Amino acid sequence: MLEATAYGKSRVRLVQVTRRTDRHELCDLTIAIRFQGDYDESYTAGDNRAVLPTDTMKNTVYALAAGGRVRNPETFGLLLARHFLDRNPRLQRVRIDLVEHAWGRIASGDREHGQAFVRQGPETRTATIEGDRGQTTVDAGVADLVILKSSHSAFAGFLRDEYTTLPETDDRLFATSLTATWRYRDPDVSFDTAWRAVHRTLLETFAEHRSASVQHTLHAMGQAVIDHVDEVSAIHLVMPNKHHLPVDLTRFGLENRNEIFVPTDEPHGLIEATIVR
Amino acid sequence: MLEATAYGKSRVRLVQVTRRTDRHELCDLTIAIRFQGDYDESYTAGDNRAVLPTDTMKNTVYALAAGGRVRNPETFGLLLARHFLDRNPRLQRVRIDLVEHAWGRIASGDREHGQAFVRQGPETRTATIEGDRGQTTVDAGVADLVILKSSHSAFAGFLRDEYTTLPETDDRLFATSLTATWRYRDPDVSFDTAWRAVHRTLLETFAEHRSASVQHTLHAMGQAVIDHVDEVSAIHLVMPNKHHLPVDLTRFGLENRNEIFVPTDEPHGLIEATIVR
Amino acid sequence: MLEATAYGKSRVRLVQVTRRTDRHELCDLTIAIRFQGDYDESYTAGDNRAVLPTDTMKNTVYALAAGGRVRNPETFGLLLARHFLDRNPRLQRVRIDLVEHAWGRIASGDREHGQAFVRQGPETRTATIEGDRGQTTVDAGVADLVILKSSHSAFAGFLRDEYTTLPETDDRLFATSLTATWRYRDPDVSFDTAWRAVHRTLLETFAEHRSASVQHTLHAMGQAVIDHVDEVSAIHLVMPNKHHLPVDLTRFGLENRNEIFVPTDEPHGLIEATIVR
Amino acid sequence: MLEATAYGKSRVRLVQVTRRTDRHELCDLTIAIRFQGDYDESYTAGDNRAVLPTDTMKNTVYALAAGGRVRNPETFGLLLARHFLDRNPRLQRVRIDLVEHAWGRIASGDREHGQAFVRQGPETRTATIEGDRGQTTVDAGVADLVILKSSHSAFAGFLRDEYTTLPETDDRLFATSLTATWRYRDPDVSFDTAWRAVHRTLLETFAEHRSASVQHTLHAMGQAVIDHVDEVSAIHLVMPNKHHLPVDLTRFGLENRNEIFVPTDEPHGLIEATIVR
Repeated sequence: MLEATAYGKSRVRLVQVTRRTDRHELCDLTIAIRFQGDYDESYTAGDNRAVLPTDTMKNTVYALAAGGRVRNPETFGLLLARHFLDRNPRLQRVRIDLVEHAWGRIASGDREHGQAFVRQGPETRTATIEGDRGQTTVDAGVADLVILKSSHSAFAGFLRDEYTTLPETDDRLFATSLTATWRYRDPDVSFDTAWRAVHRTLLETFAEHRSASVQHTLHAMGQAVIDHVDEVSAIHLVMPNKHHLPVDLTRFGLENRNEIFVPTDEPHGLIEATIVR
Repeated sequence: MLEATAYGKSRVRLVQVTRRTDRHELCDLTIAIRFQGDYDESYTAGDNRAVLPTDTMKNTVYALAAGGRVRNPETFGLLLARHFLDRNPRLQRVRIDLVEHAWGRIASGDREHGQAFVRQGPETRTATIEGDRGQTTVDAGVADLVILKSSHSAFAGFLRDEYTTLPETDDRLFATSLTATWRYRDPDVSFDTAWRAVHRTLLETFAEHRSASVQHTLHAMGQAVIDHVDEVSAIHLVMPNKHHLPVDLTRFGLENRNEIFVPTDEPHGLIEATIVR
Repeated sequence: MLEATAYGKSRVRLVQVTRRTDRHELCDLTIAIRFQGDYDESYTAGDNRAVLPTDTMKNTVYALAAGGRVRNPETFGLLLARHFLDRNPRLQRVRIDLVEHAWGRIASGDREHGQAFVRQGPETRTATIEGDRGQTTVDAGVADLVILKSSHSAFAGFLRDEYTTLPETDDRLFATSLTATWRYRDPDVSFDTAWRAVHRTLLETFAEHRSASVQHTLHAMGQAVIDHVDEVSAIHLVMPNKHHLPVDLTRFGLENRNEIFVPTDEPHGLIEATIVR
Repeated sequence: MLEATAYGKSRVRLVQVTRRTDRHELCDLTIAIRFQGDYDESYTAGDNRAVLPTDTMKNTVYALAAGGRVRNPETFGLLLARHFLDRNPRLQRVRIDLVEHAWGRIASGDREHGQAFVRQGPETRTATIEGDRGQTTVDAGVADLVILKSSHSAFAGFLRDEYTTLPETDDRLFATSLTATWRYRDPDVSFDTAWRAVHRTLLETFAEHRSASVQHTLHAMGQAVIDHVDEVSAIHLVMPNKHHLPVDLTRFGLENRNEIFVPTDEPHGLIEATIVR
């Protein structure tokens, strides 16, 4: 018995340059489109009559982008979702995932050049639009936001068993690569303004929090977004603990002053939670 | 309000060499451990008293591996899951993800060397053990199994709209990087034997199928596993369509004979489904 | 006969936090060390008596960093090179490669937080110190500096043969991921000031140049550095041409206005040259 | 002053399917082409009249592949090199780098299927053809050949200084990801036969060698190739030491039996040498 079918196109790359003035606009997106619907006979019988090719999904991205400037991932995702739902009766549920790659303007002399750009990152802005003909959700987010605090981070008082060797610490480096996604209460939001408010709240709370653990700071960051950004109904945070191991300098006859660390990726702690209003 | 919390350790690497005879055994795993339970106060209050450190989870992997040879990912995952559930009253649900990296033996003269190995891949064997104190599920799988068929693959008769430019074809290259995960009806299975049976069935069906689409072959592969391997209750397949674009040689005054292709990763189709018994 | 031996340690990771005031300093480096010298008997006879373990090279990085704040990759590389040459009579030539990963400060309210940081990139700053007991060269550089210009980029008037299908263009997107390395005339340079001057010159020239090809702009960028930064004796630039293919919208009944592009990584042009004073 | 210019096309992907019988042949290559020659005016003046576009280089790969089956990377690289040198008077020196991705045949029942393939790796076969109108060199190689030996590997008797903490060992895991490239005395070689002979010699020597260090085994492997494969005039080996750290189980009240290891990628030793006839 067939269940949970889905098909679509992933990693559709789009760069749009808008040339209305000497100050060009640049939008750089990676998009994935996913259809769920009444497509069982394509699986069971090889009958493609109802199947919109994934190549057409890709073409649709380019055609709709050509119709007007892509202002932000959320509005372009909504446009794509509505287009596909309006045109494809067999389609029951569509999901559009968008990743926006950030570019800044190159400075030339004491001004920003209007037609030359430099890639920024590793942080990206994300959006997911998902819906059927009745209801659509808009999630916005940030991925690969790598942050580190060098004070006010402890981890102590934890459970111990016979395999526990971790020393307690009241002053460790705390580094993570944040992925956060938040849901807007309704799709009628000023997406850029809201995104910046959430982004600023996440960073400020991370910086100011007196952390007893990754869990503790994750919760504080999510709760601060709920408290300060009215448009958000829920936020999910995923925070790998990118451990920075202090080097034991006493082996070399030197004093440990909590200044020399080995950053590691493997293994890493992985902490997540959702905070809802 | 706090929801959907989870914490754990990811990318724990373990290589075990068993030296009981001159023919050493090698097991190479990457493991992730995920706890869900009654840990809210670590998030909301920074109270770590119930928190088993993720560093201890990592240590536990090594300590339990040292207790006996790791025979396969499924049994080692079950051992880890039971250990954590038995020891941690606050833990309600645990998940262990394991990836086994394959090694073969180096040939020396006309025999296999007992103590020298060569990595094989890119394919990996996977397992996921998930459960609470009442019930445990065992999923096995394969990831990054890159396969290609050069005959009996068509894609025609599909839906067209004004953005459709894809030509129909009755003879294309069909390449994918298969990820399949299947659930065993109960955890009392001969895991290695069952895994090999599923693996062989997936490959043979892919090779022999007269494909009308990725969807069509995906379903045939999953259905064949359900039909031929009794231990399996359900199988989920994910198949990116790694497009191989035929080069138009007529631009160079040459004939197109369907022999010269450009393999591409971006964009790719992405097809998935679950087949249940 | 043995030739061209070298050994060393790669991907040594170092994060140094300097806590002299409330405004912590953060330095994040990846370092490789390479020894060439009179080590043949370790290869031919397995005689390790003259071999400084690569593990000791790694430890030396941490011990020397602990001796004082790492101010920039060039000075730390010089310190490491001199240390190894002074201590190891068999060592004839040493090379230290350093990559600095950039971090900015997180803004909190209207000020920069002194102890919270956000990773910046993808661009990195690089340095290579290479030398023997007589002479040492200092190369500085930048890697993964991804830049794009949306005007004043043409490619026309090129050679054609029977396999040439590329249309001429007087207005294309020009994007690259710049790797540049430049040599200082002598090691007594204000490294941070010089690095910023080269970096600014590269970006400004890229932005302002009326490009007839990647080669043309590469040369202009390198020549501008030679012309404007006295400390530099030579500069090597490598510029992959990250093609942005215009989408042919006429297939969808739309007008091509040179606004919609597919960025691609594979294949890419690859252009390089050295400009010397 | 302009020096060391080069331009070309990288990551040209080619899959060729040869369908002469029911048993199709599959060749999967990634190719880079690099021109050096009299192209200065394209850099200094933006004069493209002598510049063969890199897009044409890519097209040439497909056109020449279409002329007959690509039998192996060496012969196809020679064909490309000669084509470009014959046609482009300004071209002084050309380099073709080829990487062959291995595919095996899928078994179906008790036979190999003629038209279905499974990717093998991570190991790849490489070749580099480089030459001018007078002389051409053919290098063959292997990359990403990941190998491990669990016996007969020691590292002891090494130099110690005040930063040395590494314990001596007479029984460690020795793992590496081998990159080897060897030069043929002349281009008139049975490339497949010679490649297999070198490959087998490298693996057997690695397996059988009583290793006092990575350097020691690297030399033995290279020397064995020189001794046993007449066609080879020189071989260069690069061997990162992929450290496997023994876990100290005594911290958990268990005995260390040299069976439990943490494989690590960062940092790694890096050893290289050339052995010439």
